[in-house]
This record gives sequence, C-alpha cells and structure tokens, in this order.
Amino acid sequence: MFHRELPLHARAGWLIRLHEGRIAPGSEGGLLQPWQPWPEDVVLLGYWNDDPVAMIIETDPPPAAQDWPTGRQWLSRLPESQFSLLSTALQVGSWWRDHRFCGRCGSHAERIVREFAMHCPNCGHRNYPRISPCIITLVTHGKDMLLGRNRRFPPGRYSTLAGFIEAGESAEEAVRREIYEEVGITLGPIRYFKSQAWPFPHSLMLGFFAEATSRRIRIDEDEIADAAWFSPTQALPQLPPIYSISRALINAHLNAMKGEAA
Amino acid sequence: MFHRELPLHARAGWLIRLHEGRIAPGSEGGLLQPWQPWPEDVVLLGYWNDDPVAMIIETDPPPAAQDWPTGRQWLSRLPESQFSLLSTALQVGSWWRDHRFCGRCGSHAERIVREFAMHCPNCGHRNYPRISPCIITLVTHGKDMLLGRNRRFPPGRYSTLAGFIEAGESAEEAVRREIYEEVGITLGPIRYFKSQAWPFPHSLMLGFFAEATSRRIRIDEDEIADAAWFSPTQALPQLPPIYSISRALINAHLNAMKGEAA
Ligand SMILES: NC(=O)c1ccc[n+]([C@@H]2O[C@H](COP(=O)([O-])OP(=O)(O)OC[C@H]3O[C@@H](n4cnc5c(N)ncnc54)[C@H](O)[C@@H]3O)[C@@H](O)[C@H]2O)c1
Ligand SMILES: NC(=O)c1ccc[n+]([C@@H]2O[C@H](COP(=O)([O-])OP(=O)(O)OC[C@H]3O[C@@H](n4cnc5c(N)ncnc54)[C@H](O)[C@@H]3O)[C@@H](O)[C@H]2O)c1
Repeated sequence: MFHRELPLHARAGWLIRLHEGRIAPGSEGGLLQPWQPWPEDVVLLGYWNDDPVAMIIETDPPPAAQDWPTGRQWLSRLPESQFSLLSTALQVGSWWRDHRFCGRCGSHAERIVREFAMHCPNCGHRNYPRISPCIITLVTHGKDMLLGRNRRFPPGRYSTLAGFIEAGESAEEAVRREIYEEVGITLGPIRYFKSQAWPFPHSLMLGFFAEATSRRIRIDEDEIADAAWFSPTQALPQLPPIYSISRALINAHLNAMKGEAA
Repeated sequence: MFHRELPLHARAGWLIRLHEGRIAPGSEGGLLQPWQPWPEDVVLLGYWNDDPVAMIIETDPPPAAQDWPTGRQWLSRLPESQFSLLSTALQVGSWWRDHRFCGRCGSHAERIVREFAMHCPNCGHRNYPRISPCIITLVTHGKDMLLGRNRRFPPGRYSTLAGFIEAGESAEEAVRREIYEEVGITLGPIRYFKSQAWPFPHSLMLGFFAEATSRRIRIDEDEIADAAWFSPTQALPQLPPIYSISRALINAHLNAMKGEAA
C-alpha cells in the first residue's frame, strides 16, 4: 500500500487544480503548476520526476474556471507522460464528489489522510475510489476487423466493442457475453493485449483480441447504431483517437497484418 | 447490456436466499432452491441451465439463518459450475447493503428494475455494483517462485502477491508498483494469465506471471509477514485452495517446469 502522507518536508513540488472535471492550465502546456507552500486540504496524487504532486479540489468556482479545459480536452493536448496524472486526478475528483455520504447508513463521511479512502464515523463503512473494469475487444476474422459505432459517436467514427464487466464475471466471460449481446457473434480463441486507465469517469479498460467463429452480424439496436467488417487493404472509417486503447488494438492488428503480407 | 427484467412468464426457476453474507442450502449440495411463484422484491441474478435464477436478500434474520454457510464456506463445498452464481450473489448482496443512500447527496436511493443499479431520486446520481480490480502475480526467477504470507493467513500458508489497482493506473503499472512495494523487487517482462471474479467482498483478480530482475527481497512489514523463493524441486509450503487463481498460477508454472524437465 502506497501511503499518501503529505511530504511536509518536501521543498519542491507540483499542484493540480480541479473544479468539476476541469483542470487549470499549468506550465509548459501541462497540468502542473509549481507549488507554493502546501495549502490546507490538499490530496497527494503521486509523483512527477520524483517530486510530489498535490491536487486541490476547488468546491467554489475559482475565477475563469469556465475556461479551464475539461478532462477530454486535456487528453488530446497533454504530454503523454502526464496521462496517468490526469487519469488519477479525474478519478479521485469524481470519487470525492460521489462519496461524501456513507452509502450504507447515509451519514456524512470523512476523508482518511493516509490513503484515498472515505470513512463513515457512524457505521464504520470504508469507501475507496471506484474503478469500473471494462472489456474492450477487437474482433477479427482472418485479416478483417469488426468495428461498430454507437449513436453518440461523431459521424463516420467506428471503434472496437466495449462494455462493463458485471459482478461475478471474469474478464474473459465478459468479452464473450458483450460481443454476443452487441453483435450476435460467438468467439473462438481470445487473447489479452494490455490495459489502460480511462477516467471517463472511472473505467479500467482491459483490451483483448478475439477471433469470430462466423461473419454473420446481428446488431442490438439498443446498444449500437452500426457494426461491420473492415478489411485492412481497403479504406478504413474514421478511427478512435491515437491515445485510446481502442486505436492501439486496431494499430497492433494492422501492423501484424502488414508483417504477414511482407 | 443484459436487461435484468423478471421473466414473469417463466414456469420454472431457481432461488438463492441471502442474509448478511450467508446463503441458505439448496438442493443437491448447491445454492439453488426450486422456485415458488416469484416473491416480491426479487433480483434476477442470471441463468442456470437456461432457467432463471432469482435472489432474495432477507433483511430480517430468517429462522436458522445463523446455520447457513458463509460465502467462504460455500466456496470449498460448491459444485464448480455454481461458482459464478455464488460470486454474483455475494457481490450484489454487498452492493445492495452499501448503496442504500446516495453518496453524492445522502438521500435514500432506489433500485432500478431493469439492471443492477441504484438511482437517486434527488440528484440523479446512479450507482452500479462496485467491482474492485486487483492484480495477483506469480513472480518467478527461472524455475523458482516468490511466495509470501500475510499475518491473517493460516499458519504455514504461502501465496502469490496481490493488491488493489489504484485510480489512474493500468493493471501492468499496478503489478510493478505492488511487487516493488511489498518485496522491493523490480520486474522484467510480465505476462497476463487470466482473470477470476473473487467475491470477498467484490474483487476482480487479474492474474500475471512476472520475471524478477534480481532475487534480493526487501519485505514491507506493514503488508507482509514473510516472503521467500521456493524451488519446484523442493518441498513446497501449504498453498492456497485449488479454486483460487493464486493456486492456478502456481500450478500452471509447476506444470510448465515439469514440461521443461521432461
Ligand atoms: N479507451 C478507449 O479506447 C475506450 C473505447 C470505448 C469505450 N471506452 C469506455 O468503455 C466504457 C464502456 O463503454 P460502453 O460504450 O459500453 O459504455 P456506455 O457508457 O455506453 O455504457 C453502457 C451502459 O452500461 C451501463 N453502465 C454504466 N456504468 C456502469 C458500471 N459501472 N457497471 C455496469 N454497468 C454500467 C449503463 O446502463 C450504460 O448505459 C466507457 O467507460 C467508455 O468510455 C473506452
Ligand atoms: N483469488 C485469489 O487467489 C486471491 C489471492 C490473494 C488475494 N485475493 C484478494 O485480492 C485482494 C487484494 O489482496 P490484499 O492481500 O492486498 O488485500 P487486503 O484485503 O489485505 O487489502 C490491503 C489494503 O488495501 C486497502 N484496500 C481495501 N480495499 C480497497 C480498494 N477497493 N481499493 C483500494 N484499496 C483498498 C486497504 O487499506 C487494505 O488494508 C483481496 O480482495 C483478496 O481477497 C485473492
């Protein structure tokens, strides 16, 4: 366990200021502002080049906070090395907002200093930041990729299929259930790729490759607007942004297919 | 999304009765009782041989409930095919207990019928059953395995190392952080094994193999009582139970080493 004690002896450090999902611009295009003496009520988030990073969650709107970029806006402009600080800041922020009261008895909860945890002084219940594990799967049939879109996507964008893991399920069971529910396809072998923290609002994406046993698609229209097979040798639709694990799955497959063709 | 509507037209089905983490014995040594007409306030949990399984969460103690087996007692006697029903029942039960009130505003929350979700009629916040993703890692150095024990283990028992993934971290980052924190070891390549739902109280275990870059152990005494290298060719300590992913990691490694020796 990483103890989140404030390093009061520290001589240098960084600050992230958060207000309702927006983060103040810091130095050099990133999230970080050089620190002043630690303010009260600060949360130690992690480290940046071995210097402590603290977060202030501003409850009253600070001046100009409406111009601070949102989490998603930060994503596309942030140095990649600050991605995990962004992720932690947004997730701790939404956890903090959503666990002010004890879910078991309704009392006011209190923050524990040494870790990210809320404690109920009335019934003793303890709450940690929620992380919702999700699967995300690139389904293939030979060289072809199955990509889908939901109604909220920008026009023309297709992506790999994703969904939340349910209580009592393994990640592998969730892959087979979700793909069957969304597109009616059963899967042969599945293979883990890698994972990514995705702070919208608090997902942990577990990436898989899976081979379809057939090409016949039956779309669940509650979930998905369209899904289709795409060949790497033909024009591809608009794909998800480069920092997403969805795009990384697609690129890994395209690279493997290029390797085979060569 | 799997809609959890009650199949009121169903002619046959099964029931699980839960009271504070204990489950009533059902037929044939399992959790399932043949159904009577669906009682009020029932939760559709899933399916068993294509027949619906409902759960009743008893809030007042039913007669003899103190003799019902606990979740952990069920684990060791349950037919393996009912493991995921057990997992879902325990996780939904603890979620239900811990989300009666809205964490954001403290109001009484209401259950949504079509899915496992609690909804706040006051502020609109929605809460799904919590699943806490954890990593569990068999660290190896050539053929040898690094196993540890914490103070709560039965005497003589050693296991692989586990820990909760933190907000903003990938699973792979959590493997490297946890192993470094618990035993001071840095890792070379890591390889995903598989996952397991672990309902004590709501973990999703993500299993990994990892190769240590050195054999020097530095134990974090807050976390761990002992850790040591064990050779497959010598006497092993008492290992975790066969239904655990920890044991599956150890057995997979032992089998691979046997294969190499042959
Ligand atoms: N990083 C990436 O590459 C990438 C790509 C696609 C999706 N995602 C993320 O994956 C997640 C799932 O994608 P989706 O399109 O299925 O999501 P979604 O937001 O469309 O959710 C689908 C439904 O799941 C239910 N739900 C919401 N939160 C839940 C929870 N914690 N547990 C159980 N059910 C829940 C709700 O009923 C919701 O309508 C989202 O967080 C999304 O942002 C990430
Ligand atoms: N299935 C298996 O083979 C297997 C084997 C070992 C451990 N496990 C499970 O793995 C999990 C982690 O094991 P451990 O020994 O580190 O656990 P632990 O219960 O000793 O927890 C360690 C510390 O983590 C913190 N914590 C608790 N819940 C948290 C959460 N949701 N998020 C962040 N921090 C939290 C607490 O400070 C706790 O003291 C447990 O759920 C345990 O049951 C499963």
